[in-house]
Amino acid sequence: MSLLQQMTDLARCAKLASRQLAELSTTEKNQALKAMAAALAACSPALQKANARDLESGRQMGLNDAMLERLMLDDKRIVAMAQAVRDVADLPDPVGRILDDRTRPNGLRLQKMSTPIGVVVIIYESRPNVTADAASLCFKSGNATILRGGKEALHSNQLIAAAMVEAGRSALGDRFPASAIQVVPTPDREAIPALLSLTQYVDLCMPRGGEGLIRTVADCSKVPVIKHFKGVCHVFVDRDADPAMAMSIVVNAKTQRPSVCNAAETLLIDQTVAARWLPDIAAQLATRNVELRTDPVALALLRSRTGPFPLILSPATEQDYYTEYNDMILNVRVVEDVAAAINHINQYGSGHSDTIVTANEATARRFLAAVDSAAVYWNASTRFTDGGEYGMGAEIGISTDKIGARGPMGLEELCSYKWLGFGTGQIRT
Amino acid sequence: MSLLQQMTDLARCAKLASRQLAELSTTEKNQALKAMAAALAACSPALQKANARDLESGRQMGLNDAMLERLMLDDKRIVAMAQAVRDVADLPDPVGRILDDRTRPNGLRLQKMSTPIGVVVIIYESRPNVTADAASLCFKSGNATILRGGKEALHSNQLIAAAMVEAGRSALGDRFPASAIQVVPTPDREAIPALLSLTQYVDLCMPRGGEGLIRTVADCSKVPVIKHFKGVCHVFVDRDADPAMAMSIVVNAKTQRPSVCNAAETLLIDQTVAARWLPDIAAQLATRNVELRTDPVALALLRSRTGPFPLILSPATEQDYYTEYNDMILNVRVVEDVAAAINHINQYGSGHSDTIVTANEATARRFLAAVDSAAVYWNASTRFTDGGEYGMGAEIGISTDKIGARGPMGLEELCSYKWLGFGTGQIRT
Repeated sequence: MSLLQQMTDLARCAKLASRQLAELSTTEKNQALKAMAAALAACSPALQKANARDLESGRQMGLNDAMLERLMLDDKRIVAMAQAVRDVADLPDPVGRILDDRTRPNGLRLQKMSTPIGVVVIIYESRPNVTADAASLCFKSGNATILRGGKEALHSNQLIAAAMVEAGRSALGDRFPASAIQVVPTPDREAIPALLSLTQYVDLCMPRGGEGLIRTVADCSKVPVIKHFKGVCHVFVDRDADPAMAMSIVVNAKTQRPSVCNAAETLLIDQTVAARWLPDIAAQLATRNVELRTDPVALALLRSRTGPFPLILSPATEQDYYTEYNDMILNVRVVEDVAAAINHINQYGSGHSDTIVTANEATARRFLAAVDSAAVYWNASTRFTDGGEYGMGAEIGISTDKIGARGPMGLEELCSYKWLGFGTGQIRT
Repeated sequence: MSLLQQMTDLARCAKLASRQLAELSTTEKNQALKAMAAALAACSPALQKANARDLESGRQMGLNDAMLERLMLDDKRIVAMAQAVRDVADLPDPVGRILDDRTRPNGLRLQKMSTPIGVVVIIYESRPNVTADAASLCFKSGNATILRGGKEALHSNQLIAAAMVEAGRSALGDRFPASAIQVVPTPDREAIPALLSLTQYVDLCMPRGGEGLIRTVADCSKVPVIKHFKGVCHVFVDRDADPAMAMSIVVNAKTQRPSVCNAAETLLIDQTVAARWLPDIAAQLATRNVELRTDPVALALLRSRTGPFPLILSPATEQDYYTEYNDMILNVRVVEDVAAAINHINQYGSGHSDTIVTANEATARRFLAAVDSAAVYWNASTRFTDGGEYGMGAEIGISTDKIGARGPMGLEELCSYKWLGFGTGQIRT
């Protein structure tokens, strides 16, 4: 059987499964999820065995220690994975929400109701827990999932999916479609373009991982893709900021967890206050070993600074302003005013998360309106852009796209909608 | 200058314009729209002159009469076009709506607010009034538009856009960005893939027209596309229907305006009532010259029917069930029950508009839940799927996609959203 034929079968089965999923009640879905969580916990020994095979071939493939560490499943990780599935069962059902309700002059009542999307392809890298996370979020939102993890995790991923499907069937019998959760069974790279050419069956693709992976997927896909690109996030310290608050937000946004997409990469500071506040901010960052890449004005302000922790300074290149460091490095640029800060962010940012620190409401409102990003904050750290922090319970990623979903994607963002029309025989005249 | 360079300049200017549009107030936008409406009406003679050039070269290109008729602008059409722009000014501003509002335990307030999408490319065929319609809807929703009409309408389209831009500038001065409304200046077909490769500037493409055009655009585009595909719409007459209502809805859905996408193409009727009701429905359709393409069971029921208006009958092929006739032709199929009707619709339909006629609420609820279409009706004609009928005021099209917008797309559907976070210094711990 050709690869395209194999992918077509997979996708066609997923589409049929999605029809059945659309008819499951909330109670049924939650029953199945609880059974899945129990099954994952119960199959921990078998899962660790499958994972050991993946680790072994990973070593042979020459994966580095960090990659092997991400790939590894132990008891603790499996318990956490099962608990995450149980948590999804406890979240409200995102399907069937009435988003609009209007009755027209002719008496026709129109309701806009949230629905599943249909068939969702998730493409991701090493961590096998993504398999359970993504599958449970998609299942709860009534979507059939086709999962494509890293080839190094294939055995682990297949066993996780199989355990979830078996648990679903034991909980719901034939009401649970066996193709609700599928793992692409081949590591062949050509499987991805084949699968993403099937617009008649696949409704959405979400790649999660490095920028290269996402660009490759988006480039080859004929189905809609919601991209979760990099986070080049900014803190703008306005002239009317409270300096202590500014300090605290800059330090938090950069250093609390520098490896994640909502960490700040660039500090912008208003020229009126830069001379007064920047040296102290820089000194504080130096205590945490943050390297600063600065524009000439900031460099001049900081160069002579001495203290117990020496500053690590170098001039910023234009490319630096586009870069997601995911590391203890921060660009620093002195800007003329809020308008210049907005322009910088819209030019160099990635539309992820940006914040202004100011006590001036008019300035803040302008910043909130003009910065074209998924999340724009006033007097808060960029680090809050996260499904959990937003009260969504869990997230499948953070979209930097503007069509379909933007920002943290929880269960509601895994839904589409349809219009229901309730008539009493209305015809159009 | 290469075509790609030319398109890049166009798109970059549009992106910059979209930043300025995002900062316009509702009052400013409405002022500009009213000035545009007045300008279109005022330039009627010049517009008819440009249109005469288009008509002349259209004749030389060998356009048929129907195409020339669609292309033609006269006083009446220009007045209607101007009025449509004025109507958009009177609609509520879709930007700035608060779609969600939550305060987290840490005091961080999160508001989900509607925003413009950014840069929208509209690709369409003959009618020049689409230029003014699309440009005004995009402008009101804060989006910069790049318009690509049929090459036969280039002069008319360019003059319409120029008149609108000039009016915008005279109303708002420098606050109105000259690149808010642009027409692709070349008829070169390669302009489309060039423009739709510019993911850094273009946020969305909406092709409007025949299936071939839409597929070509979707195939070459690297930016998100919202497709407005064909309407293969169904009426299902359930065993518990009121027969008079069923008759009225079938006749309306098929014959009231057969050329449009929300007209019905297939009648499904429950086997329990087919023998009793189908002959009368067929006879009524015969009075309106509707040709019936029937499955064997319906054919057997109808073959012996005589009357003043003879039935036009032929057997339906499987391909017929997939076909949008846009004509006085209706497929007729007898189905076992509501489940079979749902399966038929999900298999052969285009996810546009489908209706059930029944007095049985449980049957209706099942149909509404399971039919995977943009609009699903209970006891109403499929013909209601329309921005005007939905109270949206105007529509830019009817999406058969599930990501971004589904069903009629009015001003609200031309929006994205962002999250605003209002803090008092919150940091993440």
